[in-house]
Amino acid sequence: MVEITALDATAMAAARAELDRKTKPRGSLGRIEDLAVQLAGIGVTAPRFAIVIAAADHGYVEENVSAYPAEVTRQMLRVFTSGGAAISVLARSVGAELVVVDAGVREAVDDPSVRSLRLSSGTANATLGPAMSRAQALAALDAGVALARELAGRANVVALGDMGIGNTTAAGAIYAALLGVPAAAVCGPGTGLDAEGVRRKVDTIERALAANAPLADDPVDVLAAVGGLEIAVLAGAALGAAAEKIAVVLDGLIVGAAALVAARIAPRSVEYMIAAHLSPEPGHRLGLDALGLRPLLDLGLRLGEGTGAALALPLLGSALALLAEMATFEDAKVTDAGR
Amino acid sequence: MVEITALDATAMAAARAELDRKTKPRGSLGRIEDLAVQLAGIGVTAPRFAIVIAAADHGYVEENVSAYPAEVTRQMLRVFTSGGAAISVLARSVGAELVVVDAGVREAVDDPSVRSLRLSSGTANATLGPAMSRAQALAALDAGVALARELAGRANVVALGDMGIGNTTAAGAIYAALLGVPAAAVCGPGTGLDAEGVRRKVDTIERALAANAPLADDPVDVLAAVGGLEIAVLAGAALGAAAEKIAVVLDGLIVGAAALVAARIAPRSVEYMIAAHLSPEPGHRLGLDALGLRPLLDLGLRLGEGTGAALALPLLGSALALLAEMATFEDAKVTDAGR
Repeated sequence: MVEITALDATAMAAARAELDRKTKPRGSLGRIEDLAVQLAGIGVTAPRFAIVIAAADHGYVEENVSAYPAEVTRQMLRVFTSGGAAISVLARSVGAELVVVDAGVREAVDDPSVRSLRLSSGTANATLGPAMSRAQALAALDAGVALARELAGRANVVALGDMGIGNTTAAGAIYAALLGVPAAAVCGPGTGLDAEGVRRKVDTIERALAANAPLADDPVDVLAAVGGLEIAVLAGAALGAAAEKIAVVLDGLIVGAAALVAARIAPRSVEYMIAAHLSPEPGHRLGLDALGLRPLLDLGLRLGEGTGAALALPLLGSALALLAEMATFEDAKVTDAGR
Repeated sequence: MVEITALDATAMAAARAELDRKTKPRGSLGRIEDLAVQLAGIGVTAPRFAIVIAAADHGYVEENVSAYPAEVTRQMLRVFTSGGAAISVLARSVGAELVVVDAGVREAVDDPSVRSLRLSSGTANATLGPAMSRAQALAALDAGVALARELAGRANVVALGDMGIGNTTAAGAIYAALLGVPAAAVCGPGTGLDAEGVRRKVDTIERALAANAPLADDPVDVLAAVGGLEIAVLAGAALGAAAEKIAVVLDGLIVGAAALVAARIAPRSVEYMIAAHLSPEPGHRLGLDALGLRPLLDLGLRLGEGTGAALALPLLGSALALLAEMATFEDAKVTDAGR
């Protein structure tokens, strides 16, 4: 699907050595230094941020798994483009281009600033059969790859976000299937369920997995069986970004599921990923652990939309500024303890 | 010393209610919402950031407690003002005014952009008697208060940072004395000590506490006996900022010790404080717990200079932008689940 090269080890070693010459004790900027080194390995020097938010609807809503009605997905598309959504505000606040994608909302919106990658009017109810066909899953992945390739001309850091009423159920099913853990281990209240709602979500995931028996070692099969169209587009975007040497900043639970799919398709894509934050939903931590990623922030965010990813972008900007602009001990004539 | 009013409860309730009308599930922006509410209570709507970095030297260096020689404190003052230090880069990166303060470096620097609040050429070796006199400690606190009052005209958020070779020992002694815990419970490697160095630091703190027997319920006595001049100025700045309704963003270990002193002098000052990050030094967590503050970041930072505080400033900017700019469910005509 995509060809992904390893990070540039020479550039990473040079960045680490340069950081060690800066006027500070070695390693004293902690994970900010690791971030600068990773970005150097990707080839990012001056960041140009984009945020991709992909939206889709989910057949799971028939199982009453969300506190919100399905039409909210479509309503929110307009809020994203009109500038009033959390992610719209954050995109301005951190200086990022916002790309709003319809990956399969039930009913299309008549809004020229929404990028249409509609492969279907939402997924089918996965408790009754596959959420989508394998061909649809592959087409959505490809559409995500193509979107990332197009962004390469104007961004070198892309934050991924999601919108989709019912999509914590789709993400939960993907985590459960790919990680081989019970549905109860990955489910929490999402964006507003009570305990009874969480039980209903667990039950829905269990029935979806039983109805489809997806192959745990075939991420496309899992995606098609129990996933979502926005998750597929986001997984494709992660793969395309890695292929284009664009850093991929992951939001929370839903984007984490997309990242897990991407990593199972092309393990090297993980080298390009940065986990922005830890969602309170239990599946997210399991997913990040499986990816070997540590989140930068842990602020109890459970909105989605890419808000956690957007909030972390200034840390990347600061890491790159430190690498580029700090004086060395030699420049500054400061005594170096050498450690 | 200062008069500090409680946060504006009406403004906080209004901010919380406004956040609940925004197009997102209630509370789904987690601690970012709490930050917006706290800032509303302080009276900050559009942030104007300043970073105060206070530097001083420490008699503790005679006990060989640092990997760096004392002259590095003075050398770094020039790096701060010439723009090449980590905090200089971050101040530019996040859009903050940088105020560099000489709170008592051994030898004064001839640099007009360093603000001189020198009350002494560094502290005395506290293992042999008080680090400074009570009068000096009070004068340094007052100087910090006055600095904050002056900043009130041009900043409403002030990040505090420190520079001082040997100052993790001074901070450790303050934590041990004010929290009533053993020196070994608060000490880690600082910015580059090995295990033997940490043992030396613990021993030095124990001897300083034994030599002075500071009164745990008198924060000024503790500050004078075992503290540092930059810590005193920073504690004063925290108090002055709170009195002027300026939000106070705390850096790591050293500023945490200053915050603890400030809180013991005027408990209400804590309402104006935001803990930016968690230092790996064990005393810091104990201090934040005692203050009832939760850090925003946990990135393994152990540089000081206010770098952790600076890295957290964009989160405050984003929190305020979300409160000011997000659409409400009603504005955006989005169906609200009411939770």
